[in-house]
Amino acid sequence: MEAKPVRSTAEIRLRRFVIEADEASAMAKDWGVATAAELLPLLVPAAQRLARPPISNYHVGAVGLGSSGRIYLGVNLEFPGLPLHHSVHAEQFLVTNAAAHGETAIRCIAVSAAPCGHCRQFLQEIRGAAEIRILVTSDGNPSAFRPLSDFLPHPFGPPDLLHKDRPLLLEPHDNEVRLLEPKTAGEFCNGDGEGVEDRLRRAAESAARAAHAPYSGCPAGFAVADGEGRVHAGSYEESAAYNPSLGPVQAAMVAYVAAHGDAGEQRGRGWEIVAAALVEKEAAAVSHEATARIFLAAVAPRAHLRVYRFRSS
Amino acid sequence: MEAKPVRSTAEIRLRRFVIEADEASAMAKDWGVATAAELLPLLVPAAQRLARPPISNYHVGAVGLGSSGRIYLGVNLEFPGLPLHHSVHAEQFLVTNAAAHGETAIRCIAVSAAPCGHCRQFLQEIRGAAEIRILVTSDGNPSAFRPLSDFLPHPFGPPDLLHKDRPLLLEPHDNEVRLLEPKTAGEFCNGDGEGVEDRLRRAAESAARAAHAPYSGCPAGFAVADGEGRVHAGSYEESAAYNPSLGPVQAAMVAYVAAHGDAGEQRGRGWEIVAAALVEKEAAAVSHEATARIFLAAVAPRAHLRVYRFRSS
Ligand SMILES: [Zn+2]
Ligand SMILES: [Zn+2]
Repeated sequence: MEAKPVRSTAEIRLRRFVIEADEASAMAKDWGVATAAELLPLLVPAAQRLARPPISNYHVGAVGLGSSGRIYLGVNLEFPGLPLHHSVHAEQFLVTNAAAHGETAIRCIAVSAAPCGHCRQFLQEIRGAAEIRILVTSDGNPSAFRPLSDFLPHPFGPPDLLHKDRPLLLEPHDNEVRLLEPKTAGEFCNGDGEGVEDRLRRAAESAARAAHAPYSGCPAGFAVADGEGRVHAGSYEESAAYNPSLGPVQAAMVAYVAAHGDAGEQRGRGWEIVAAALVEKEAAAVSHEATARIFLAAVAPRAHLRVYRFRSS
Repeated sequence: MEAKPVRSTAEIRLRRFVIEADEASAMAKDWGVATAAELLPLLVPAAQRLARPPISNYHVGAVGLGSSGRIYLGVNLEFPGLPLHHSVHAEQFLVTNAAAHGETAIRCIAVSAAPCGHCRQFLQEIRGAAEIRILVTSDGNPSAFRPLSDFLPHPFGPPDLLHKDRPLLLEPHDNEVRLLEPKTAGEFCNGDGEGVEDRLRRAAESAARAAHAPYSGCPAGFAVADGEGRVHAGSYEESAAYNPSLGPVQAAMVAYVAAHGDAGEQRGRGWEIVAAALVEKEAAAVSHEATARIFLAAVAPRAHLRVYRFRSS
């Protein structure tokens, strides 16, 4: 038997937050592992380097395998000047990233530190959550995946509150969202015939349609335009336990970071947000408008926010 | 053996959120149980009736025994119009209530539903958390207390981030808090020679001194005055996992509800808040001011807020 050359996973650089199935297979082969699941822990250090935790400086990376064979990255995000509930954990990033790419199930996740209770709870929103396999790379025996039910036995979750046929987090949602004032008037258009404001509104509206908000009945979507005119949108994701819900603003930040790949790392991890749109329910029991405004005031003070409301019949 | 008359715990009414040790002993005797711990599950239905969950209508009650022999109640609070991270869970209420009364350890907790992951994580801030015994009354076998380590095995928690000698949640804190503008000028005084604004400032300042904020280094305190001129204060309580942290505003709402006992139940659970004070660090990495303002705008729109800042050397 020939000795394999010793290679360090510190060498691995990842430029994107989604790895296609065929690329994952090639990487697994290159690193001498038999399955994509075994590849996940090897990618964790590379994911950690993409984290943006300016408050804690505690870099968390999570790498998950979807049922499509795609691999999704997740990192933690923190926002100075705001309460800590604005933070996004790596596992939430991963799930939100997978949801935005139409993934319908997550099979296994490797993560750099023991998942916190908040994340173990958030993961309950996925159907069959108990079976999701988790590996903590900081543990002594990093080759062992264990089911989520080992990490959160006797859970509180969607079955305590919802009918079993209601769609869960990675399942298709089509919330009824008809804007009260659908047309943006008097706006300049860019070259492709549609202005940034229109694109933001449409993106936030689509995100609201796809939101998972079965507990409050208040779906919402948020979209931001970056300095290059690219639009990044996120859907509100509720948790049966309420507090671990991921706001639409945070979900849009996940999309922003995922779209920028490692460019954020190179450019100092600033947030170049020039405009934003929020779509939420009229007179909502759960409204994100005021919170979105304080988020933008702290993170992108010059960004302009437009809020669109819908009435559900 | 004489048959005991069948009594229903539905009969139990609780008027206050703290039960003194001698009163707890008398109640245990009255209900024919040998220990205060066995009394806890009997009090859960009474606690549930004191909850204020106008969004979910899902009433959660928690009843815990401190090492002093006192019993503390906790209920869930929800605030319509705001994101769900403003909610307070019953277990968080219980711990915050105990902390406000100088309790140094919680031995066991009975709660009406399986604790969510967010609460299992929040409880990690208590030294010896793994040993806290928990009983879920909705379970088939409600007489069994099980350790928190059974509910959140392999936890992420303070030992991952803090030196072992740093004080944890129920241990004494004395954060250095010297206000930049300590004197409130030109205020009318009430009969006892000190105005409401002064009392609010002092209460919020004391709460900031007692706050548990080892992760951000940004202790904070919040105080509200109710319609009767009574002041209720709360200390910011951080979680190693960031998001499950309880804000100073929420902690003050716990004090408000606890002080009103069952009067809130009788008066429709409104929030009569006429003025508020926030004490927080200058240029804080974690600032609560903007969030406190949107909270008050939703819950008590006519309340006036004063913000005091301190510089830590
Ligand atoms: Zn987490
Ligand atoms: Zn909870």
